[in-house]
Amino acid sequence: MTYCVAIKVAEGIVFASDSRTNAGVDYVRTYSKMHTYNWEGDRTLVVLTSGNLATTQAVINKIEHDLENENSEFNLKKARHLYEVAHYIGKLNQDEQAQHLKAFTKNVKALDASFIVGGQIGNQDDDIYLVYPEGNYITVSPETPYMQIGETKYGKPILDRIVNEETSLNDAARCALVSLDSTMRSNVSVGPPLELAIYTANSLIEPRYMNINLSSPLYKDIQKRWAEGLHAAFSNLPKFDWEG
Amino acid sequence: MTYCVAIKVAEGIVFASDSRTNAGVDYVRTYSKMHTYNWEGDRTLVVLTSGNLATTQAVINKIEHDLENENSEFNLKKARHLYEVAHYIGKLNQDEQAQHLKAFTKNVKALDASFIVGGQIGNQDDDIYLVYPEGNYITVSPETPYMQIGETKYGKPILDRIVNEETSLNDAARCALVSLDSTMRSNVSVGPPLELAIYTANSLIEPRYMNINLSSPLYKDIQKRWAEGLHAAFSNLPKFDWEG
Repeated sequence: MTYCVAIKVAEGIVFASDSRTNAGVDYVRTYSKMHTYNWEGDRTLVVLTSGNLATTQAVINKIEHDLENENSEFNLKKARHLYEVAHYIGKLNQDEQAQHLKAFTKNVKALDASFIVGGQIGNQDDDIYLVYPEGNYITVSPETPYMQIGETKYGKPILDRIVNEETSLNDAARCALVSLDSTMRSNVSVGPPLELAIYTANSLIEPRYMNINLSSPLYKDIQKRWAEGLHAAFSNLPKFDWEG
Repeated sequence: MTYCVAIKVAEGIVFASDSRTNAGVDYVRTYSKMHTYNWEGDRTLVVLTSGNLATTQAVINKIEHDLENENSEFNLKKARHLYEVAHYIGKLNQDEQAQHLKAFTKNVKALDASFIVGGQIGNQDDDIYLVYPEGNYITVSPETPYMQIGETKYGKPILDRIVNEETSLNDAARCALVSLDSTMRSNVSVGPPLELAIYTANSLIEPRYMNINLSSPLYKDIQKRWAEGLHAAFSNLPKFDWEG
């Protein structure tokens, strides 16, 4: 399993992902699910991946192959709009699944993969798209300024409570880490290291990047203070009538 | 959808449930999912239901029919152990689904229902069982002192952080309400009123019962203080290096 989240606030975009993959509990491995493409001053794109590892790796390989090939009909460098990138990834996703579908008659969902792609192209607004296994895609709204893929539910309540358009970029990054932490506590198939990329809107430079292990002082401090804060919040809840 | 949770602590058991059912967004109704059976001094049993409403209603009807019929081979009154009750509900669940399965060839999961049954019989320990759609069942452990059915994931992180065997019964009840609140915020198909039943171990009396609307002062106070506490906890998270 996987958990990736991207949050769009006024100041920019935060991307965060775990690194655990598993094909059954006896085959757990670590792979990065975050792929960054940056051409300074022109465009910055981050792709997060979830789902069948063969499918996501094939899609990323094809993205990179198309980039190396100047004659390719389309690639990340040639895109004029971010939605074209979402459309392109959706098509690569569908093409890759279609190649192997015949061998998966028993479980047609087994090849599914989802992607989040976000960033900024030239002077257009920065944005995030979620690309579904079927190849179609949606973007965020001011009311729902984040996108999640993978094991999304455990980490959603904290996003719903904290994040809105006006949240600072650093707070959005902290919220993404707490959302990942809650997910890791409740689902062992989501695991470290965590990757965090923070893109400042209109900068068109490489996002600020952190690779965070459970033993990192920052992460331990976040975990500790969050646990303490939750317990304090819980202790402060009203008593029932009968507690006197 | 539904969300029900039962928490077993040293002092007793807390049961909590929402009341929303839906068959598509244009057919949303309110039904109680909590059914209490009490014979003071002898046994107290609470059943929580989730899944296909026709299945859960049929199972509850059969439980009550068997209770009224003194000649029935088995009923809640005749059970000697709580696991016999879990086994009985599992069988009723399977029998009911089997009756209608032929009409559901396209979606064999559509008739699924899950149950939580908990309480105490005579001088045996109080306990909780989760009964799966397939009729089999499991009980809690000191490490996992709660059971959930329905839309379980949004409300799980707070249980994992707060509840353990030593948690007081009142704190467990508050935690159940926060868990329900988090779920309602993230999934519109889980909704009020909330029902709460608090059973004190070895009392063998009717559990303390509350029916809680969103407008109830207690619930509004819990929501407000929890939101404030979470925001305070969030504000207290460590800064990144670059924030100076």
